[in-house]
Amino acid sequence: MDNKKYNFGAGPCILPDNVLNSASDAVKDYNRTGLSILEISHRSSEFENVISECENLVRELLGVPDDYSILFLQGGASTQFSMVPMCLMQQHKQAVYLDTGYFSLKAIKEARLFGTVRIAASSKDSDYDYIPYDYHIPGDSAYFHCTSNNSIEGTEIFTFPETNVPMICDMSSDIFSREINVANFDLIYAGAQKNMGPAGLTLVIVKKALLKGIQNLIPSMSDYRIYDAHNSMFNTPPVFSIYVAMLNLRWLKEAGGVKQAEERNIAKANLLYDAIDNSDHFYGLADKTDRSRMNVTFKMYSREKETEFMNFAESKGIIGIRGFRSLGGFRASLYNAMDISGVEVLVQCMNDFVDNDLFENFKLKPI
Amino acid sequence: MDNKKYNFGAGPCILPDNVLNSASDAVKDYNRTGLSILEISHRSSEFENVISECENLVRELLGVPDDYSILFLQGGASTQFSMVPMCLMQQHKQAVYLDTGYFSLKAIKEARLFGTVRIAASSKDSDYDYIPYDYHIPGDSAYFHCTSNNSIEGTEIFTFPETNVPMICDMSSDIFSREINVANFDLIYAGAQKNMGPAGLTLVIVKKALLKGIQNLIPSMSDYRIYDAHNSMFNTPPVFSIYVAMLNLRWLKEAGGVKQAEERNIAKANLLYDAIDNSDHFYGLADKTDRSRMNVTFKMYSREKETEFMNFAESKGIIGIRGFRSLGGFRASLYNAMDISGVEVLVQCMNDFVDNDLFENFKLKPI
Repeated sequence: MDNKKYNFGAGPCILPDNVLNSASDAVKDYNRTGLSILEISHRSSEFENVISECENLVRELLGVPDDYSILFLQGGASTQFSMVPMCLMQQHKQAVYLDTGYFSLKAIKEARLFGTVRIAASSKDSDYDYIPYDYHIPGDSAYFHCTSNNSIEGTEIFTFPETNVPMICDMSSDIFSREINVANFDLIYAGAQKNMGPAGLTLVIVKKALLKGIQNLIPSMSDYRIYDAHNSMFNTPPVFSIYVAMLNLRWLKEAGGVKQAEERNIAKANLLYDAIDNSDHFYGLADKTDRSRMNVTFKMYSREKETEFMNFAESKGIIGIRGFRSLGGFRASLYNAMDISGVEVLVQCMNDFVDNDLFENFKLKPI
Repeated sequence: MDNKKYNFGAGPCILPDNVLNSASDAVKDYNRTGLSILEISHRSSEFENVISECENLVRELLGVPDDYSILFLQGGASTQFSMVPMCLMQQHKQAVYLDTGYFSLKAIKEARLFGTVRIAASSKDSDYDYIPYDYHIPGDSAYFHCTSNNSIEGTEIFTFPETNVPMICDMSSDIFSREINVANFDLIYAGAQKNMGPAGLTLVIVKKALLKGIQNLIPSMSDYRIYDAHNSMFNTPPVFSIYVAMLNLRWLKEAGGVKQAEERNIAKANLLYDAIDNSDHFYGLADKTDRSRMNVTFKMYSREKETEFMNFAESKGIIGIRGFRSLGGFRASLYNAMDISGVEVLVQCMNDFVDNDLFENFKLKPI
């Protein structure tokens, strides 16, 4: 392609070329059935094979224990923000939330519609630039909720708390990017449009015992038990998104699985963070110990040069690095499908920009 | 294509070839941006153009008045079954439902979680083979709900009641197939996977005044007002499904719009119903006056020959005609993208099957 693009967008995000090629073929003719993947019935054996392969790949890649169900839903993580409390909040019990950023706060806001929410800890006072680790989870809580990766602020939880209450985690932006011990969680949810597939699909991994304990009266489409009982096909599921997710998880498996992906992601993140730390012009936003490997947030000491840099980067094919509106600066998302060669292009671009004579009067790193 | 298929499936369903070709191209490279439609940001100008063209096409094709909002949601009609009562039921008021089939009953079941539901009328006692017209809607009801087309039973409402209470209609399986007067309804919803696009998208057309009256405390993702305020982008929308819907509505416009589609749909339905009515071997399930133009349900007098016919039809490339599990027999869905030539193939196939000497001892139409 002569207009090669390096897409650092936060999501919907980059997918591997061979996944896109297979998906494109299937839109015309799925597996030589003479039918498009968009028009096959979700009750057909063709689609049953797709959804079951997708489930098996999730199980294998994340090492999901047998006593967990894999569910495929619609609506995104935002729908989970209300489904979790709708299903799991209990009268006379509080739900405990860790407030680490924009999306955890959205989850908290929705939960408050359903019962008592206690904030275990919050890093809001310093623009969510770190992960709080000093907090207590009361043993009589309905559940504890956290966000493993804060895609807007660029922080990530590398050590999860030990607790006896059910642990719920929004892993939308770092699932499949690193090894996790699923057995430490009771319910994991993730919007698909980062490391899993296209927008319009949400993955839920839930301990069957947690489902058994649900007592609330819940609309069918908000009830995890309904998805579990109907193999995620209580109603028409998002067929195409599940198909592309399956292709993408196949690709991940062939590329060495989650362990190898994690190693590549560490190398990519180190490359970019090192460039930032060694720069006199750029600086990172998040505390070094809590830096996200998926979303790298940074700014320039010369704030007035940022638009210029954005345009320069775009001229090199780099797109999607504008920081979230409330934070400004830059955000480079390094999801699984971003090759390290793309990060090298970005680092080169940062160096070229500041090496340019035209910009020699930059505001520099304070000494 | 040497394995040409005639897909009479009830949904996800057939889409026009040129829509599938454009969608396939866009999965590789959207509009020569160097990016897949699956990886463009929903906040990009590219996608803003897509969603706004899609909205404008809905407005133009259905003649939607300016005081209505067009919303794009996820989850399917099943999610609307609970969103409607969650947003619109009011204390001390009943909601009135017309019970015309499998899906209207599902809507009723969900509504009962939220308040008092009264059934205006039901055709359940005769397997939902007709549309009741003799009923009263109390003027102090919160709203009246009906299902315009019953895709499983093969009936369709051709005359809607006149009432002063808000009228809510599930048009999942016949929207864009015939002209409607949107101004007669207060809220219309439709899962996309029939005449609009791929699974994973739901269209809502709602009178702005109805939104203003919502008083209930509702989770964000179940609140129509949130979608309205955020242009359907409170969270990441199903980008690809909206894009394909836009392509499909473009096709519909070029093919003469809804009025022309309705004429083609009448011709297709007449062709198939005439073949059924003139047959000594097949008979229709629905009352003639209420027969659906979208989903033609029929059986054979010789029930034991039905599997044989299904296999014979499949050998001719005809698929998706198995009737719904609770009803048995056949269901041929004649959505917009089904050309009349496909219906001709089906009719020919029915005639060929019964003309075959091997089956001369058929059970025939009773005299």
